[in-house]
Amino acid sequence: MHDREVAVTFQPLGKTVRAAAGTRLSEIAAGAGIALDLPCGGEGICGKCRVAVRRGAPPPGAAEQRVFSQEELGKGWRLACQTVVRDAMTVVVPETSLLASYHKILADVRGTTETAIDPPVRKQYVELPPPDRKNDEADLLRIQRAVGPIEVGLELARELPGRLRREAFRGTAVLADRDLIDFEAGDTRAMCHAAAFDIGTTTLVGMLVDLNTGEELAIASRLNPQTAVGDDVLTRILHTQKDPAGLAELQEMVVAAVNEMIGELAADADAPRESIYAVSFSGNTTMQQLLLALDSRWLGEVPFVPAAGRGLLVEARTLGLRVHPRARAHILPVIGGFVGGDTVSGILATGLAAAESPSLLVDIGTNGEIVLAADGKLSAAATAAGPAFEGARIEHGMRGARGAIERVTVDGGLQFDVIGNVPAIGICGSALIDLGAELLRHRIISPEGRMAAPDQLPGDVLPDMRNRVVADNGQVSFLVAAETETATGRPVVLTQRDVRQLQLASGAIRAGIVILLRRAGLEPRDLKQVLIAGGFGNFIRRRNAQRIGLLPNEIDPKCIRYEGNTSLAGARLTAISASARAAAEELARRTEHVDLATDHGFQWAFADAMIFPEGE
Amino acid sequence: MHDREVAVTFQPLGKTVRAAAGTRLSEIAAGAGIALDLPCGGEGICGKCRVAVRRGAPPPGAAEQRVFSQEELGKGWRLACQTVVRDAMTVVVPETSLLASYHKILADVRGTTETAIDPPVRKQYVELPPPDRKNDEADLLRIQRAVGPIEVGLELARELPGRLRREAFRGTAVLADRDLIDFEAGDTRAMCHAAAFDIGTTTLVGMLVDLNTGEELAIASRLNPQTAVGDDVLTRILHTQKDPAGLAELQEMVVAAVNEMIGELAADADAPRESIYAVSFSGNTTMQQLLLALDSRWLGEVPFVPAAGRGLLVEARTLGLRVHPRARAHILPVIGGFVGGDTVSGILATGLAAAESPSLLVDIGTNGEIVLAADGKLSAAATAAGPAFEGARIEHGMRGARGAIERVTVDGGLQFDVIGNVPAIGICGSALIDLGAELLRHRIISPEGRMAAPDQLPGDVLPDMRNRVVADNGQVSFLVAAETETATGRPVVLTQRDVRQLQLASGAIRAGIVILLRRAGLEPRDLKQVLIAGGFGNFIRRRNAQRIGLLPNEIDPKCIRYEGNTSLAGARLTAISASARAAAEELARRTEHVDLATDHGFQWAFADAMIFPEGE
Repeated sequence: MHDREVAVTFQPLGKTVRAAAGTRLSEIAAGAGIALDLPCGGEGICGKCRVAVRRGAPPPGAAEQRVFSQEELGKGWRLACQTVVRDAMTVVVPETSLLASYHKILADVRGTTETAIDPPVRKQYVELPPPDRKNDEADLLRIQRAVGPIEVGLELARELPGRLRREAFRGTAVLADRDLIDFEAGDTRAMCHAAAFDIGTTTLVGMLVDLNTGEELAIASRLNPQTAVGDDVLTRILHTQKDPAGLAELQEMVVAAVNEMIGELAADADAPRESIYAVSFSGNTTMQQLLLALDSRWLGEVPFVPAAGRGLLVEARTLGLRVHPRARAHILPVIGGFVGGDTVSGILATGLAAAESPSLLVDIGTNGEIVLAADGKLSAAATAAGPAFEGARIEHGMRGARGAIERVTVDGGLQFDVIGNVPAIGICGSALIDLGAELLRHRIISPEGRMAAPDQLPGDVLPDMRNRVVADNGQVSFLVAAETETATGRPVVLTQRDVRQLQLASGAIRAGIVILLRRAGLEPRDLKQVLIAGGFGNFIRRRNAQRIGLLPNEIDPKCIRYEGNTSLAGARLTAISASARAAAEELARRTEHVDLATDHGFQWAFADAMIFPEGE
Repeated sequence: MHDREVAVTFQPLGKTVRAAAGTRLSEIAAGAGIALDLPCGGEGICGKCRVAVRRGAPPPGAAEQRVFSQEELGKGWRLACQTVVRDAMTVVVPETSLLASYHKILADVRGTTETAIDPPVRKQYVELPPPDRKNDEADLLRIQRAVGPIEVGLELARELPGRLRREAFRGTAVLADRDLIDFEAGDTRAMCHAAAFDIGTTTLVGMLVDLNTGEELAIASRLNPQTAVGDDVLTRILHTQKDPAGLAELQEMVVAAVNEMIGELAADADAPRESIYAVSFSGNTTMQQLLLALDSRWLGEVPFVPAAGRGLLVEARTLGLRVHPRARAHILPVIGGFVGGDTVSGILATGLAAAESPSLLVDIGTNGEIVLAADGKLSAAATAAGPAFEGARIEHGMRGARGAIERVTVDGGLQFDVIGNVPAIGICGSALIDLGAELLRHRIISPEGRMAAPDQLPGDVLPDMRNRVVADNGQVSFLVAAETETATGRPVVLTQRDVRQLQLASGAIRAGIVILLRRAGLEPRDLKQVLIAGGFGNFIRRRNAQRIGLLPNEIDPKCIRYEGNTSLAGARLTAISASARAAAEELARRTEHVDLATDHGFQWAFADAMIFPEGE
């Protein structure tokens, strides 16, 4: 009976996995790449791994009776570590039950560019002389006399006379650029916040910033709920076409998640939502258009034309955002259909445009965006690298969360590190690069990417490495972690197909780099600086990335630098600085958008890059 | 039985009069100063004098059976000329049943200032290159390449990709300042309109303007429906305080009327409402604030502080205006609580600020606003003259509509002219001034304003004038039109009380003029130009206005010039010219607001001005 398999669906991810009946839900989640927070070690004590079972909830156990109220139990709340799955089940995993440290990776915003606080919203406390017969100036002009020239919208203008008098002509003027957007009772200058968001295809990361200091006050992240519709941008664009309500649906999904994050950020910083006067969004072109509910059909068809191009400044509430009622939302300008606001953010946050010698920015995500700065010119391309480095399309791939093998080294034998020092669940992007490099070094895979069968391995392969090469029905794979080393009790392997995915992903990026350099009349060795952006780059062994040809091996590894989540960093800058918004606009427009597909040399470069470089 | 009196209430004016049972409704209306359009002479043929009887409708006669459907009759529609009133009645008089020529007086806009067309909205027809793989620029940037730098709101941004492709990248960009507010199919440049409105306390006047030429295309006017709540600004302000919904109610009343007028204007010019992209409003401070639904409580209390002061630019639809969905409405800046946008319009439209020698603008309405331009400085005051010149508070007073005695002369005997050459109904403002002057000249009233009793008249008074002085129970009055000369069959007289109202009204204005001049170190004789604004000024005999002391008699009557409805003229300028808006703002701010009540000399000047000047 324990061999019977049941289907478990995790929401809002929309991921369904099959598992043996009798397995604990926490283990099934881990096997599906969902890193639940289990600080008590799965003993049912801490209650952190709570999930809502929507279908197939078993009767609650003693630990759950203690943690939950009867009402909660009635609604299906259970602890994943205590729930043994016997039948098909659908569970909703709240963001709060996920491993919190994951946030820290996503929100790694480095201050490579010092930005003066030049906030788009400022506050000024004023004590105005009350009107009398000798001073009957209009209310708005009275405020203007204290704060300088201002405009006002109808909504606030209607209330202003009453508010001024209730507060005896004292209070805090809130100014967004030249617009008076509020007049608050008392001195509220200390409460002046902005929220910055990286809207990723897979992950949303938000940050609350103090507009007085530019300081980061809180961080939140969660899965982009649109993943339930599809894991890549084209599937989502298709969804807007199949269903007339599809665009609104996707927009509401992401806004609902953003609103939840805003609630978390506000609670963490002990700040009211209404003290958030500015919100900035950075994401790829599709994510930004879906957030705004712009007609995105033509983003999914050749020649992939964006709707706006320019950064947009819109009223936050027209997007449904629950912040100050007259807050504005800024959305970064984009460079092209697949080179979006996240790339503009990267250029802005790294200061790439100011580089004195040829420099490259590589964002290793689904599209693998590349930007070259050389001779004062910027050019950018998207490479369609695919999501291999994010764990997708890899047999045991996963994101860089707890349980992920994130580092592989070979010294006599193979060793690996797992995030959280727990039994392994799968392989994340950095370990994929390590594995590719080590298997090349040990000639288990050929430069063409072919994994040798056990009986075809060169004679001098280390015994531990040799023993890990297994063949099953003619399919060769490489054992990374044995059953005894994993949380699932099943081995974690790298397959021949996984190696092909790695070749495609790193080859696409390398070919893009080659083409951008060639168009600028440069060679890889001319590069003086390579900046890596993305949620996992910190853990890339630079030599390994060069070994597999992801990054050019002609440059000194010391010139390769990790820059963290530059999309979030750019959103933060545009949230706290009006001049950063202007700079983003200028950078987006002066960056040449290179369509690799129309470059005559690209197909050759790609084919060439599919072959791993000759190496050590 | 025919001596029994019944009450008839006219809506939306809210005016109730008593009349003998058995009188025709059209005659009762005329007696109440309501000038119905009776081109067929009251024969029940043309159907122009239609009214809706809400209470006390008599059975319809044969003429009404012919003119109206059964449904209309059931709803109380009747012809005023066919309806004999036997019992108390309430009737609603539609604007279309009023004498149409009245519009022409109100909409007399004179072009004293030549204004270049500098429209706040412009159209540009573009044929854009469709995107291809070599030209994948964003849609908005593609338009921008053709029309220059633009901003776009979320609503249009959402639709733009679809619209551009449906129209094969050809169409007309509609630009409001720097904002793209529409992209229309085909070449729509010929259809580009603005609407300008004078929002008077009593009367609304609207004009449709072609933004390509500045040309006036249509005119509409009607009673301000807020008059149902009260005939002066303070009553309306009180209404917003008595009832929490009062402000919204008054706002909706005036917007409903404006929307009706927009419908008329559009129909007259054969232009769709959606081709109106800009709307401008000019009115006194209270009318402007009620139109915007600004909290106006403090406009009704010392020191009468306006809410905004500045001109405001708001989205037309947030006011409920039915024009282009992204049209903007401009509301003129104001100078003070009782010196409003209509006065700013007057300064703007007459070019007063550019006068080379001391010049005065006098708007003879309820408040009698006065503006002095001298030595490059502008000062303005409101005088609380009251509505005597508009026919209110005068026994047989009426507005300058058909049936109004508008001119009185004495040559051997008294003659008068009636608007429309019909039997007289009452006296309008210009005739009131004539009567005051002639009665002074013929010493029927003393400089102090006392009307001599028949037995106290000087011996040399002309027999025709002498015979018109009648005493009834000790009350002396002057017969202007005998029963046989009137539409009502009752005499039209000027009473002692009317003379007191005339003294108050003209004295208030004269005192204001004296104070403004004195503050500038000037005497009346220093004035080189007096400009008269208002809906009736055209018909003022300048010598008579000087005789009664309304205007200083020290200046040459040739220097007194009528300027028409300068409030509407200013609204027209700000509708067709962005620089006129900026000029209005500058004029409003540089005009010193003089509060006459706090001027030490005002009470003396007012008392002094209450005495008619010594004259011919």
